[in-house]
Amino acid sequence: MINFESDYTEGCIPEILQALTETNLEQTTGYGLDPHCLNAAKMIRKACNKRNADVHFLVGGTQTNLTVISSILRPYQGVICADSGHINTHETGSIEATGHKCLALPSKDGKITAAQIEDAVQLQKNDETAEHTVQIGMVYISWPTESGTLYSKKELTAISEVCRRYHLPLFLDGARLGYGLASKKCDLTMAEIADLTDVFYIGGTKVGALFGEAVVITNKNLKEGFRCQMKQRGAMLAKGRMLGIQFEELFKEDRYFRISKNAAECAEMLTAALKKKGYKFMYTPQTNQLFPIMTNEKIAELRKEFAFHTFGAVDKERSIVRFVTSFLTKKENVEKLISAL
Amino acid sequence: MINFESDYTEGCIPEILQALTETNLEQTTGYGLDPHCLNAAKMIRKACNKRNADVHFLVGGTQTNLTVISSILRPYQGVICADSGHINTHETGSIEATGHKCLALPSKDGKITAAQIEDAVQLQKNDETAEHTVQIGMVYISWPTESGTLYSKKELTAISEVCRRYHLPLFLDGARLGYGLASKKCDLTMAEIADLTDVFYIGGTKVGALFGEAVVITNKNLKEGFRCQMKQRGAMLAKGRMLGIQFEELFKEDRYFRISKNAAECAEMLTAALKKKGYKFMYTPQTNQLFPIMTNEKIAELRKEFAFHTFGAVDKERSIVRFVTSFLTKKENVEKLISAL
Amino acid sequence: MINFESDYTEGCIPEILQALTETNLEQTTGYGLDPHCLNAAKMIRKACNKRNADVHFLVGGTQTNLTVISSILRPYQGVICADSGHINTHETGSIEATGHKCLALPSKDGKITAAQIEDAVQLQKNDETAEHTVQIGMVYISWPTESGTLYSKKELTAISEVCRRYHLPLFLDGARLGYGLASKKCDLTMAEIADLTDVFYIGGTKVGALFGEAVVITNKNLKEGFRCQMKQRGAMLAKGRMLGIQFEELFKEDRYFRISKNAAECAEMLTAALKKKGYKFMYTPQTNQLFPIMTNEKIAELRKEFAFHTFGAVDKERSIVRFVTSFLTKKENVEKLISAL
Amino acid sequence: MINFESDYTEGCIPEILQALTETNLEQTTGYGLDPHCLNAAKMIRKACNKRNADVHFLVGGTQTNLTVISSILRPYQGVICADSGHINTHETGSIEATGHKCLALPSKDGKITAAQIEDAVQLQKNDETAEHTVQIGMVYISWPTESGTLYSKKELTAISEVCRRYHLPLFLDGARLGYGLASKKCDLTMAEIADLTDVFYIGGTKVGALFGEAVVITNKNLKEGFRCQMKQRGAMLAKGRMLGIQFEELFKEDRYFRISKNAAECAEMLTAALKKKGYKFMYTPQTNQLFPIMTNEKIAELRKEFAFHTFGAVDKERSIVRFVTSFLTKKENVEKLISAL
Repeated sequence: MINFESDYTEGCIPEILQALTETNLEQTTGYGLDPHCLNAAKMIRKACNKRNADVHFLVGGTQTNLTVISSILRPYQGVICADSGHINTHETGSIEATGHKCLALPSKDGKITAAQIEDAVQLQKNDETAEHTVQIGMVYISWPTESGTLYSKKELTAISEVCRRYHLPLFLDGARLGYGLASKKCDLTMAEIADLTDVFYIGGTKVGALFGEAVVITNKNLKEGFRCQMKQRGAMLAKGRMLGIQFEELFKEDRYFRISKNAAECAEMLTAALKKKGYKFMYTPQTNQLFPIMTNEKIAELRKEFAFHTFGAVDKERSIVRFVTSFLTKKENVEKLISAL
Repeated sequence: MINFESDYTEGCIPEILQALTETNLEQTTGYGLDPHCLNAAKMIRKACNKRNADVHFLVGGTQTNLTVISSILRPYQGVICADSGHINTHETGSIEATGHKCLALPSKDGKITAAQIEDAVQLQKNDETAEHTVQIGMVYISWPTESGTLYSKKELTAISEVCRRYHLPLFLDGARLGYGLASKKCDLTMAEIADLTDVFYIGGTKVGALFGEAVVITNKNLKEGFRCQMKQRGAMLAKGRMLGIQFEELFKEDRYFRISKNAAECAEMLTAALKKKGYKFMYTPQTNQLFPIMTNEKIAELRKEFAFHTFGAVDKERSIVRFVTSFLTKKENVEKLISAL
Repeated sequence: MINFESDYTEGCIPEILQALTETNLEQTTGYGLDPHCLNAAKMIRKACNKRNADVHFLVGGTQTNLTVISSILRPYQGVICADSGHINTHETGSIEATGHKCLALPSKDGKITAAQIEDAVQLQKNDETAEHTVQIGMVYISWPTESGTLYSKKELTAISEVCRRYHLPLFLDGARLGYGLASKKCDLTMAEIADLTDVFYIGGTKVGALFGEAVVITNKNLKEGFRCQMKQRGAMLAKGRMLGIQFEELFKEDRYFRISKNAAECAEMLTAALKKKGYKFMYTPQTNQLFPIMTNEKIAELRKEFAFHTFGAVDKERSIVRFVTSFLTKKENVEKLISAL
Repeated sequence: MINFESDYTEGCIPEILQALTETNLEQTTGYGLDPHCLNAAKMIRKACNKRNADVHFLVGGTQTNLTVISSILRPYQGVICADSGHINTHETGSIEATGHKCLALPSKDGKITAAQIEDAVQLQKNDETAEHTVQIGMVYISWPTESGTLYSKKELTAISEVCRRYHLPLFLDGARLGYGLASKKCDLTMAEIADLTDVFYIGGTKVGALFGEAVVITNKNLKEGFRCQMKQRGAMLAKGRMLGIQFEELFKEDRYFRISKNAAECAEMLTAALKKKGYKFMYTPQTNQLFPIMTNEKIAELRKEFAFHTFGAVDKERSIVRFVTSFLTKKENVEKLISAL
């Protein structure tokens, strides 16, 4: 069985296992204050061209989202997101569990627009009953989105401008950041993303690491107390250096970007083949997640050899399929899938 | 610098790194539903002699405590604990962040007694204003405690009986469970602990793993929805097999118990030496955490060669020191410390 | 200025002020345990034909909603409601502040259907990723709704059946219950509502009282600890008898139903006049809240003499108006409004 | 049965019932934005000599405490209080339910000292593990305390200075403020209290009103969003004018201070008699709550004619009794109690 279910079906890049083995008997202090974490943070600040950014290492995506968002909002504020945003759909209400509403805006492709945000703010400003509604407190976007799409530089710049105009911190969920940056459709750099947001994270779990996400806080108003917030949410790893060591390896010699290329290339191969064979897509293919529409018959047939998820029915005969490639996907497996299509 | 700061200064047992390396390219489903997690759970059920227990793998101690406790309590209930309990002192209010009060009982050695619990329950039962007080909803104990002490079988049995009489789930924090079981002062087995509690966890982070805690739920009323609870609290690892693989290694050939012995032996060596040299202890040495009282002069001298924590002043000239041994502590380093004493 | 803004623009029925005055120097115990609360609860149990129901008196609607809902749900569960439901729109995220997501279903007239609820449950049951989504834990409906509409006996029975089939407690927000029962369009009695739900409340604030809502819990599984829950949420009035005295007066001689008639009759007069003059309605008029569509010109003209709210634009020239009548609305004022239309 | 259980056994001052009756048919807007609330706020600002203070009207004490405290703290912060503080003992964990720990300091007489606060702050500053502990975020004191005692001007000034030095907002719970100000032992004015704190409240429920507490926010950093916070916590009364009208009456012609005198005088009469008869007190009598120690035999005898609470045993034969006087206590009833002693 060849697995295209997700980009976390395998382990990590071999360099990480090697580094963990080499450093195994080192004695260091805990909780992310060790030399590896300090060094990895430095490497990330450099990669983002943000020498004053605070960098923190957390374990997983849901944990990161809830820790960051609850750190920013006042009790009566909520977070704008796409209705398809991960925090609104697939984190079992983790944001609400910290006391805050997800203010979901309709989205067809996983993205929201600067105009939607501005409209929401204006609507609240002009609402006589505004005090009775959850106050807009920040904006959350995923890049790439859960639909595999990307905000362009123009789109992200517009969102950033609206957020700054209304003093709304902009938080970018980069669980798959590497795959966005590696895409041919991408016109943004990590440094530009750091410029345009107030806080974002660089996903490790899905991009090369065993686990781990690096939060980069560029807005100085959001820095205070973040380590206390992490500890309280169970997001401060005792052997914190496990995260430092991994991110050191990921950011050595541009490895984070290079390993992401493999996923991009595999996705491009697969996209080209799917198009050639006449498949339609639910969302325009842009990164390592592809959503072709297939007959249920075809799906059943493919499932004999391949593991993948489906995302609901299009009509009685057809469903949405999701194929995901990763930093470890073998091209020969993509070819096998192509032959089977 | 030789480090006696904690039992999480190093990495893990070498077998874990080897297993992670060997399984690195396996493709598995995520979120703890893979064969490694299923197998590790089976091994743990066997070690606990509880074939119907639910076993879940989480990443760290604070995360585990907050996930378990908030899963059990109703909103207006709190958790009884020792005033020195980890949840009450060193988790940045993580229990309160889920809405619940820690009902701290005074403790001199990290332990609370069955009589204290019974008194607290009776006090509430007889209180005319009971509805205005936080309702006692469960009991939390650490074994070993934060002071390095152990509940005996008799003590734990008495607590268990009180809890069952009053329908209070008993949760045992076993972050250092292995070091308790490996102690010469221990008269309990893991199976007995499983019998006497409703839910407990087997600490991996401090005992052999890179990270990870295995929650064992034996009370069937506490099982429902626990995976949803984990996901919501950011405690469900995407590449869940990282935890399964580690616990498989820890529970192969009684390894969890055998590696803990090293910490116990090192602690016993050090205890004997400290006693011989006339040092008094803040808490009776029972496990891998030792709390001798030393002059500040001596502390300063030792710090040139050794890293360790101090825990407050006894008087103007003396402070409480903490030395911690672990599964990886080298006996030659203990000997160096002994010579320096 | 004649005010049609809401049904809480005035004080209360005169009998309440008289009773408060007569009982002012009585000495009673606090927190709802006094003879007036006990008696009012008895009267309500009788009116509902539910001799075993628990009856609790709270101060206001948002408080009641958040206290009831957070009492029922486990942490990872959410509450199904109409997207226009008060808890989802106009309570500043009070449900989320207790940790729970509002699972909003689309609604055009303030109501949701049994089929929508069943679909939502089935969708979750069949979702491979269900553990990653907020679990459906209960259903909230308003009767009358925020759009002034009513569930018929058939509709409520269908909802009740779905809820019972899936073990979902059904909570009915009766902030305007009296106005529902007094409507000519109503085919339900209070006793039938008590039968078909698990918990509901009888609104006093908008129907005759200075303030106060009476929660009726008929499902015995939802009774335990409710007073602790009230105290914790700041919903237990020290001089609780203020609530008991008011509900005694409201339920003497069917007063609650009789005073509601005035609002119904005024609304019917106004509806007839609006229809006659050719106005269209946003929602079918059924109770004391009417939502005619008017030109902005007409609105501006009416505002010289009358206070009322608007609820957004229909097009460039027309907006939705809301006129609300109450137990104290004078028919002469309705006539003045009719002449001005 | 003559009742000395609490200061909320009766209704309100007659002027309030009269005002509610006279204004009953007035039509006003809701939620505290009506002319009565605006006027009462103005009167209170004047009485506090704080023209820029924000004044908000809430319904009860627990509600006020949880709304104010959760509005001020960041998620990982807690509130310093006396271990006997109402928020720590008799509000069913309402502060924890908003996510925050009560950082209780030991107190023998209901009060904490500036030195205790400073020590707690210094201890945290010097704690290597400070990030793992709940951060001190504000200070809560009751005036009068739950033990009936008062902070003197000197004591409150010292606390205020420590709080300002460490940027900790100081919140004073004035549920019984009037009885403090009316005491012969009091050397503070309301204006001085307003000067020395950042936010406090003027209790109405226990001092003359049917219900209601007036929050006075003098620190401008604490003002933003408070109405949203109120709405979210269920603390914004729909017919808000009920609160405005009551506080208008309480602050007309110094009535709040004058009615409090009655409680003070009754308490002084009773204190003198108790002392004369040789009773010892648990806490030094300073306001309207007296805590004499009596034999259980005497208590049983008194209970035939008088209602009052006991607060635990002193020894096998004696218990702590609490007698409370109020704005409505009749001196003849105090005389009856004195004769019975």
